[in-house]
Amino acid sequence: MPKPLNIGIIGYGFMGRAHSNAYRKVNQFFTLDTQPVLKAACARSEDTIREFADNWGWESIETDWRALVARDDIDAIDICVPNNLHREIAIAAAQAGKIVLCEKPLARNAQEGLEMAQAVEAAGVANMVWFNYRRIPAISLAKQLVDEGRVGRCFHYRAEYLQDWTISPELPQGGETLWRLDIDAAGSGVTGDLLAHSIDTAIWLNGPIASVTAMTETFIKERELQDEPGVVQPVGIDDACAFLVRFANGSMGTFESTRYARGRKNYNTFEMNGDAGSLSFDLEDAHRLQYFDDGDDDHVHGWRDVLVTDSEHPYMDHWWVPGCVIGYEHTFIHALADFLKGLETGEGTQPDFRAALQTQYVCDAVLESAKTGRWVDVAGD
Amino acid sequence: MPKPLNIGIIGYGFMGRAHSNAYRKVNQFFTLDTQPVLKAACARSEDTIREFADNWGWESIETDWRALVARDDIDAIDICVPNNLHREIAIAAAQAGKIVLCEKPLARNAQEGLEMAQAVEAAGVANMVWFNYRRIPAISLAKQLVDEGRVGRCFHYRAEYLQDWTISPELPQGGETLWRLDIDAAGSGVTGDLLAHSIDTAIWLNGPIASVTAMTETFIKERELQDEPGVVQPVGIDDACAFLVRFANGSMGTFESTRYARGRKNYNTFEMNGDAGSLSFDLEDAHRLQYFDDGDDDHVHGWRDVLVTDSEHPYMDHWWVPGCVIGYEHTFIHALADFLKGLETGEGTQPDFRAALQTQYVCDAVLESAKTGRWVDVAGD
Amino acid sequence: MPKPLNIGIIGYGFMGRAHSNAYRKVNQFFTLDTQPVLKAACARSEDTIREFADNWGWESIETDWRALVARDDIDAIDICVPNNLHREIAIAAAQAGKIVLCEKPLARNAQEGLEMAQAVEAAGVANMVWFNYRRIPAISLAKQLVDEGRVGRCFHYRAEYLQDWTISPELPQGGETLWRLDIDAAGSGVTGDLLAHSIDTAIWLNGPIASVTAMTETFIKERELQDEPGVVQPVGIDDACAFLVRFANGSMGTFESTRYARGRKNYNTFEMNGDAGSLSFDLEDAHRLQYFDDGDDDHVHGWRDVLVTDSEHPYMDHWWVPGCVIGYEHTFIHALADFLKGLETGEGTQPDFRAALQTQYVCDAVLESAKTGRWVDVAGD
Amino acid sequence: MPKPLNIGIIGYGFMGRAHSNAYRKVNQFFTLDTQPVLKAACARSEDTIREFADNWGWESIETDWRALVARDDIDAIDICVPNNLHREIAIAAAQAGKIVLCEKPLARNAQEGLEMAQAVEAAGVANMVWFNYRRIPAISLAKQLVDEGRVGRCFHYRAEYLQDWTISPELPQGGETLWRLDIDAAGSGVTGDLLAHSIDTAIWLNGPIASVTAMTETFIKERELQDEPGVVQPVGIDDACAFLVRFANGSMGTFESTRYARGRKNYNTFEMNGDAGSLSFDLEDAHRLQYFDDGDDDHVHGWRDVLVTDSEHPYMDHWWVPGCVIGYEHTFIHALADFLKGLETGEGTQPDFRAALQTQYVCDAVLESAKTGRWVDVAGD
Repeated sequence: MPKPLNIGIIGYGFMGRAHSNAYRKVNQFFTLDTQPVLKAACARSEDTIREFADNWGWESIETDWRALVARDDIDAIDICVPNNLHREIAIAAAQAGKIVLCEKPLARNAQEGLEMAQAVEAAGVANMVWFNYRRIPAISLAKQLVDEGRVGRCFHYRAEYLQDWTISPELPQGGETLWRLDIDAAGSGVTGDLLAHSIDTAIWLNGPIASVTAMTETFIKERELQDEPGVVQPVGIDDACAFLVRFANGSMGTFESTRYARGRKNYNTFEMNGDAGSLSFDLEDAHRLQYFDDGDDDHVHGWRDVLVTDSEHPYMDHWWVPGCVIGYEHTFIHALADFLKGLETGEGTQPDFRAALQTQYVCDAVLESAKTGRWVDVAGD
Repeated sequence: MPKPLNIGIIGYGFMGRAHSNAYRKVNQFFTLDTQPVLKAACARSEDTIREFADNWGWESIETDWRALVARDDIDAIDICVPNNLHREIAIAAAQAGKIVLCEKPLARNAQEGLEMAQAVEAAGVANMVWFNYRRIPAISLAKQLVDEGRVGRCFHYRAEYLQDWTISPELPQGGETLWRLDIDAAGSGVTGDLLAHSIDTAIWLNGPIASVTAMTETFIKERELQDEPGVVQPVGIDDACAFLVRFANGSMGTFESTRYARGRKNYNTFEMNGDAGSLSFDLEDAHRLQYFDDGDDDHVHGWRDVLVTDSEHPYMDHWWVPGCVIGYEHTFIHALADFLKGLETGEGTQPDFRAALQTQYVCDAVLESAKTGRWVDVAGD
Repeated sequence: MPKPLNIGIIGYGFMGRAHSNAYRKVNQFFTLDTQPVLKAACARSEDTIREFADNWGWESIETDWRALVARDDIDAIDICVPNNLHREIAIAAAQAGKIVLCEKPLARNAQEGLEMAQAVEAAGVANMVWFNYRRIPAISLAKQLVDEGRVGRCFHYRAEYLQDWTISPELPQGGETLWRLDIDAAGSGVTGDLLAHSIDTAIWLNGPIASVTAMTETFIKERELQDEPGVVQPVGIDDACAFLVRFANGSMGTFESTRYARGRKNYNTFEMNGDAGSLSFDLEDAHRLQYFDDGDDDHVHGWRDVLVTDSEHPYMDHWWVPGCVIGYEHTFIHALADFLKGLETGEGTQPDFRAALQTQYVCDAVLESAKTGRWVDVAGD
Repeated sequence: MPKPLNIGIIGYGFMGRAHSNAYRKVNQFFTLDTQPVLKAACARSEDTIREFADNWGWESIETDWRALVARDDIDAIDICVPNNLHREIAIAAAQAGKIVLCEKPLARNAQEGLEMAQAVEAAGVANMVWFNYRRIPAISLAKQLVDEGRVGRCFHYRAEYLQDWTISPELPQGGETLWRLDIDAAGSGVTGDLLAHSIDTAIWLNGPIASVTAMTETFIKERELQDEPGVVQPVGIDDACAFLVRFANGSMGTFESTRYARGRKNYNTFEMNGDAGSLSFDLEDAHRLQYFDDGDDDHVHGWRDVLVTDSEHPYMDHWWVPGCVIGYEHTFIHALADFLKGLETGEGTQPDFRAALQTQYVCDAVLESAKTGRWVDVAGD
């Protein structure tokens, strides 16, 4: 019988749903010694969290996260709230000796993130940031191919994360569902929300980022508040951000993100070009990885369209049969399975808070460069 | 509180897993008055079904399907066993007054299927065949576009269902996991297994099939038995099948299926060409539908690559956010949700046994034509 | 100095232009001992052929093809007229000792084709049919890969040739530009016009076709005559044709063609599936060949998208630099270059009339099967 | 009868061939009042230029470009030599009253380019820079769609031009065929060679570039000289260059180019995102344009894959039939046809030297920014 791990979740939105689904499913698909128990769900509104808990099978509810953190029957705190609450909750949870799982980005800025990393390390508690895209089988396969030397000396890394959902000037900002447009709640716009994903993946595949020069833009200068119809305020976030990179390994990088790319829904792409080969990925076709192998015979050189659904591919032997795709939600199940295995072995799981902090340093450098117009060296530990 | 519906499942393989997953998830994502209860799982081997039940949360087990059918606490029987057992179980379940859900194909041939349809109709029990691909959002969208008149007068329908997993002569036949290669268990090869899907979709989108001429082939003439290593027997199934079709609406059709198409994993495609527009789909990119609209301005005519992940698309408002894909398993959840709604409203859900029987008639005609070399009219009710 | 080869061309339409362009360009891009001379162009209308000759640099004109064939200063007759004129001109040209080049299809039927083949063979004159698609670099590469054993034992061959230009009922038939819709001039519809291409390629890549079963359809039953506005006559051609094939090598084939596939302009595709690998091609992206190599490592298996523009690829070292595509017209230049080299070496060039006759036999079998509804064995020499 | 225009070409390499082909073909496909005459070809080596002239039909040769410029029977000078010679030849030709056509980039830097523009303007001679990619039908169509308002307010413009032909350290620099790697001959690396194309297209489609910040890299630090085997020298060119852009219209841009992107042969892409729609293009599939129309119905929103081969598309009515592609070389024919029409009407043709100078200003700003690490405003006239 697997050992129970009592989870207390804070938040009930998009990520609250995705995590709840993962907790409910992981043991059917992965053989583990640990079984997450949906112990308690927490949000300020009792009605809201009651409905959420009922739907997902959370055994109890709390309306004050401090009460949740104080409960003895909770082993792990899972933070699914807006970014401005990450730091305080994470530090309190760590100090209470809880395992801490935190949605990305780790924090609104590196200073907050550093305090969080120091807190979990001081407390000696297991911790992870849900950079779920590392667990897309195609991206895990990319990592494997890099480690096998199939890219070789890397010359170029380029990443784009394009969406189009904020083009309308009628879209309000702030509030329950639109806090990602509120600078206070989110800390930044696409930089923390989307580029954090791109940066985490980039560091994982291509190593540390040394320096950046960046540009940001806010196309719609003011928006109505979601919570106060009729009240219009300046928009504080970056609607779009692009930056150039020098990686520590000598390769060049380009990164861009926006929510104003008409026709791009979740176009999170990267490409690596090395002397041995190239890789290319697009989240809108997440079940595929493009691979160019310089070692192929000259007359049959070509980008291989690898359908990442075979049992040889990362994670896929846990699911259905070759050719049957999995979806977005499965990345959270993979991350959770890996985290539970890391708990069981004591080896931990990446990215932990310390690793996620590196992404935060890059985000800070990007935003600083966008202000100063200068190249900025990325801070380190 | 939703009303419980007690499920008894027979079978624990690929489909047993997919259905169990659906029963566990449907209520978190669809608002229903009914809640499936995983009441009992059944298979001949006690150890096997015990492990399966433990993993998925089935409350009890049976090792004799007749005992399961006889249980008063079971409302619905879900048949996930090889095709040769469909008829007997379905008829017994219907006669016991149970709701009957049956994996596709309905039966090994139309005669068996007809008896099954008559049995559920005589008993007046709700019934459905799991032609899950109708519930792929992109295929549901295709149906919607056809109904909107966006294809118009149909000239052509073409379907392919290509896989490559039986090319090796070393692959045995029969047994627990390879019964699809055993003519007695399966009834046919790709015709019943893969083309049944293609035919069901075709009839749904383009109406009845009037007549066919077909060709089948068995490339590997004999294989070892999985259950009796060293014993080699002739292969009775069709490894590949192709046929031409005249639809009742005057359009032409071509269908092909094989398990010998190197590089094709689950390449289930169709294309419709009408005077108003065309549609094209590929299961390996199930989140997309290609649509050509003749009404577009001449200089910007082009196939539209519709990413079927928006809330406007069938089923997608139940899942995540635009750009986040779902996977293979979700088609079963959709089918189940539709079935439960059909129960609640009393309107039933398609395809029921009677509708699935039409596919069986086509399969029979195809196999007969392959033997005689003649065009064969498809039988009807 | 290359030796002149005096060409007399009959016809001035689409193919007359394509061939004229080839004659003018071949020596700039291929090193040859022979130089085609644009000696005379022939058509019934003096004004028309005069304008054509002036545009392309043909030195003289004729209005009677018999006069052209009789000229001593003509070495080769190039037949670019409707199919119903192929036989008579080719035989006369052969009897006059001329080299004969003939547009595809060779003839309206195998009987005409046989007489033509016998005539050029009796006369001992060099001859070629312009099945230009063999000279698409990607298709030539496909042939090379087949010959290298990269497909291995072939299981499946499938071909489609889809267009959409005759959907409108307002389109007339017959006349100068629409003779392809006139059964007397063309001999058949898509079978001779489009499927002849598909069949020629198939035989080249996969060997002889043994037997077929076919279906044809004429969607628009009557059309106005182009030459007699207001006069409506039944349409005699096949608007669409599909057939199943057994190849001599044991593989199965499916073929389909239509001019009613909305959104498909020149969608001439084929796919081969063998135990060692697969190939796939689409004329709308003629600069690419898709190749699946079963020998790739399991976790990086994938269809390779080979951009056929490198100097290693067939014909491409004669053109620009890697990544720079060539177009439709270049296939004629390649065919001409090969023909001239075949003349110089005395080894001839394929497909000659005899080879093209094999395609004619298949077309005849297809049309017969479409009438009788039976499988038909393909006749041979 | 069209009026002859006597051309004198300087250079015989890749561009010399492409232009010669254009001069020979333009009148067969475009109805013009002017006919280019291949009057004289010029290069330092008599043997080389003799062979070139013989192959292409140039009537005479010169071995000193000053002698060519001095000839009375020459109307237009076409400059196809390395960049370091553009300025001197162009100015001399202008002063001699010749029409001047110049390969891109206009010059090695803006100063040279400015002198050239002033010279042709002072002399009042017609002039054009061969930015041939504007004449790709798909790019011309993109311009048309922009002008029709189908992109609307532009938020983003991104361009990549990726190749992979200089990855090998064994590749030498300089000499007849590798002068593009020689800083003295070329003026810069990918910036002038490839990004000049990207910039010209961007300005045409999206208007002036206001400021840039850039990064360049030279991955292989030294190479052998092609002309002096065994002699190794530092590489002075930029192997790769990336830059961020602010356009005058408020949109953001990203540009990148390299010759170190394994698997990319001629991957010249751009994408525009506006509030009304988006456009995307890739030179490796130059016959296609991707277009997303925000005005489409919500459930059938999707990127349209426009096959740019119909008679409604720019230039295509001059070629074959819908679905028949043209290739790289045709862009030069289009440019030439447009130039000749501009001559005939007296309205000139874009881009002339003055327009091409704008691209040069951007290149200068890019290279300066790469040195200083600062944002640089683009100079203007």
